[in-house]
Amino acid sequence: MQLMEKMIVEKGSVLPGDIVKVGSFLNQQIDPELLRASAEEIVNAFSDCLITKVLTIESSGIALAAAVALRLGVPMVFAKKHKSANVDGETYVTVVHSYTHGTDYTVIVSKDYIKSDDTVLLVDDFLANGAALRGLLDFIRQAGAKTAGAAVAIEKGFQHGGDKLREEGLRIESLAIIESMDGGAIRFRP
Amino acid sequence: MQLMEKMIVEKGSVLPGDIVKVGSFLNQQIDPELLRASAEEIVNAFSDCLITKVLTIESSGIALAAAVALRLGVPMVFAKKHKSANVDGETYVTVVHSYTHGTDYTVIVSKDYIKSDDTVLLVDDFLANGAALRGLLDFIRQAGAKTAGAAVAIEKGFQHGGDKLREEGLRIESLAIIESMDGGAIRFRP
Repeated sequence: MQLMEKMIVEKGSVLPGDIVKVGSFLNQQIDPELLRASAEEIVNAFSDCLITKVLTIESSGIALAAAVALRLGVPMVFAKKHKSANVDGETYVTVVHSYTHGTDYTVIVSKDYIKSDDTVLLVDDFLANGAALRGLLDFIRQAGAKTAGAAVAIEKGFQHGGDKLREEGLRIESLAIIESMDGGAIRFRP
Repeated sequence: MQLMEKMIVEKGSVLPGDIVKVGSFLNQQIDPELLRASAEEIVNAFSDCLITKVLTIESSGIALAAAVALRLGVPMVFAKKHKSANVDGETYVTVVHSYTHGTDYTVIVSKDYIKSDDTVLLVDDFLANGAALRGLLDFIRQAGAKTAGAAVAIEKGFQHGGDKLREEGLRIESLAIIESMDGGAIRFRP
């Protein structure tokens, strides 16, 4: 998606540790035109699927997931980060490893909100190692539901989490795939 | 707003401790038609204001704030809960008291995203004691910005946080105001 690549180049910045800062337009302040166009592109990419639900993890994927759900006219669900694995039997639980922080965190979602007859579109702002998407896929598996695939705003292609998930059969639509950002120069995958 | 009241009565439930559970349509799973209609109602209510930004606190207000920002065509910003008050000089910091959990938490937002020439609409899913809105108002004050007012999905009128803020001059539009829920029977403020 040209607009996403343009915003990354013009308004993003590269920080040490392969971090691309996009807080001014994507994940702390959200540009409304980019949000609208991103949702449109994602809905078009999955127009062959009968999606019944959009699923993300709090917090920075919620705005995009909500915009996609509004366009599709289906409910949006967000999984919550949880302090401990001690939750009641009414929730699905999974553990996600954060490569950024070097820690594991527990994520939960109510069993009421993902059912076996759902076809779920996963949405997130970033895809790097794929840990968050794998957590969401674990919810789908636990619920016995189907997934239409995953839609991501920015994929860090050089961390190959998306490539591995694609090899395993997951359909992924990324609005921009960063192939490299050596020396602060961002290069996109064509 | 009749639709919000209808959803609360039909799909919400009252739990001990004056908690109204609305996770199935408002703040964990989000109903797309309710979200669209809520954003529409809020935009109409503030149509006399030149809003330049929508501000909320993560996580459960983000979907509504994003929907409002999409309709207005202005950026949406969400303040983040933070583990400590040790943040760099690039962020505004405030402390919000959670009456639900009996603790204080720190909330931050980048100084880049609220400027003195902004007219900010505050958006949140719940208004009870008003602590979260007061935190957001503190950001507005620190930035020297203006506020158009606050838009809230559900106000717990019997906790009077909204009434106090109105007395202090804040314009608040609540889509539903629960006047009482004694014995589990929800009564709305007309």
